[in-house]
Amino acid sequence: MSNEQDTRTAFMEATYRALCKHGYADLTMQDIADETDKSKAALHYHFDGKDDLFRSFLAYLHEGFLEEIADHPDGTPVERLVALVRRVLDPVDDEGDRQFNTAFMEIKAQAPYRDGYRQVLRRFDADLHGEVAALVAAAVEAGQYGPDTEPDEIADHVLTYIHGTWTRAAAIGADVVSMREHLVEDLLDLLVDGAEVPVSPAHTDATTVEEPTDAAADDGTEEVTSR
Amino acid sequence: MSNEQDTRTAFMEATYRALCKHGYADLTMQDIADETDKSKAALHYHFDGKDDLFRSFLAYLHEGFLEEIADHPDGTPVERLVALVRRVLDPVDDEGDRQFNTAFMEIKAQAPYRDGYRQVLRRFDADLHGEVAALVAAAVEAGQYGPDTEPDEIADHVLTYIHGTWTRAAAIGADVVSMREHLVEDLLDLLVDGAEVPVSPAHTDATTVEEPTDAAADDGTEEVTSR
Repeated sequence: MSNEQDTRTAFMEATYRALCKHGYADLTMQDIADETDKSKAALHYHFDGKDDLFRSFLAYLHEGFLEEIADHPDGTPVERLVALVRRVLDPVDDEGDRQFNTAFMEIKAQAPYRDGYRQVLRRFDADLHGEVAALVAAAVEAGQYGPDTEPDEIADHVLTYIHGTWTRAAAIGADVVSMREHLVEDLLDLLVDGAEVPVSPAHTDATTVEEPTDAAADDGTEEVTSR
Repeated sequence: MSNEQDTRTAFMEATYRALCKHGYADLTMQDIADETDKSKAALHYHFDGKDDLFRSFLAYLHEGFLEEIADHPDGTPVERLVALVRRVLDPVDDEGDRQFNTAFMEIKAQAPYRDGYRQVLRRFDADLHGEVAALVAAAVEAGQYGPDTEPDEIADHVLTYIHGTWTRAAAIGADVVSMREHLVEDLLDLLVDGAEVPVSPAHTDATTVEEPTDAAADDGTEEVTSR
């Protein structure tokens, strides 16, 4: 890695730490420089102000997000779909991470005002949408979901629900795990009659399959017959 | 109404206009005073800074929200539930309203940092949750939804999805109507076998019943049999 690259990476990591401490709205270039051994002048040499720095920061986060959502080809498509939802909606126990999630929501709220933010946020949305739709299509192919299941519609539903989970957690402190497991139940409810998927219990965050359960049954929320 | 009350109302209306113009993050007390015929000193006489003003502003918005979500007792419980979802997720065609929705998301993102914001935001969430749960319970009572339907679980699902719709619309410009109608379909999919509910077509925003349709059928998204 070049020196130039090292410096940019150091600034990205510093931006992450500064965001957790200060949030987005009140964050200054000085706050970010303070998280490095560089000067504010050096930061301004690399980035043309806060908006420019944040366009780079969003692209940097997006790279990490792609690794997070990459499919782990263990198990059936529905198991991998549930594991994906659980990875993306991992409950945040660490105070720093919680602050980062809130700051990221501030950044989403800034998207309409700042050039370039929305483009990167659309990539986050589209890439996760693509992963979900691909897994739903694979579930149809494997006979786990019925042939009428629409991958894009399910993916759209999942994306909206995931955004809502983050927002409700930040705005009113709603419990991420209970919202997430409601989504997991929706995805299990889509299974064709008789299909069984071993999925680890709701209260764990395991992304691997541990034991069979039947979490989707008996909750009544989506129990309808086909019409 | 007293003069004092008139003045506070004028400041609340000015805050709304200023938010639409400037967003939350960059908004100053001067921007709000500029929307009135009062001075910034007068604003500071009434409110102890931006946070204090916004606590009052959120309470003021909450009053309007209560009127918006109040049940209109025309039609069956499921029709009223669909009408409620459509009122709350009314697509925003007006540029000012769109800017306000984005600003409101900024405020949600500020909730963890500002004293008192979260308490009011929780009331928005809880009051809508209560309305939805009451209508779901009435639908069970009326035999439109099955006896195993859990009003609180459905309400939780609806709330998370509504927050997600607002967030995705602000962050990436996703289409509110298509997300909202997906939620309406979910609510119609919960109808017991054979129950028919006349609901106006997806592309209108009518909150009154106009003609029968069968939007929920044949989309395949939630077509599962009870297990």
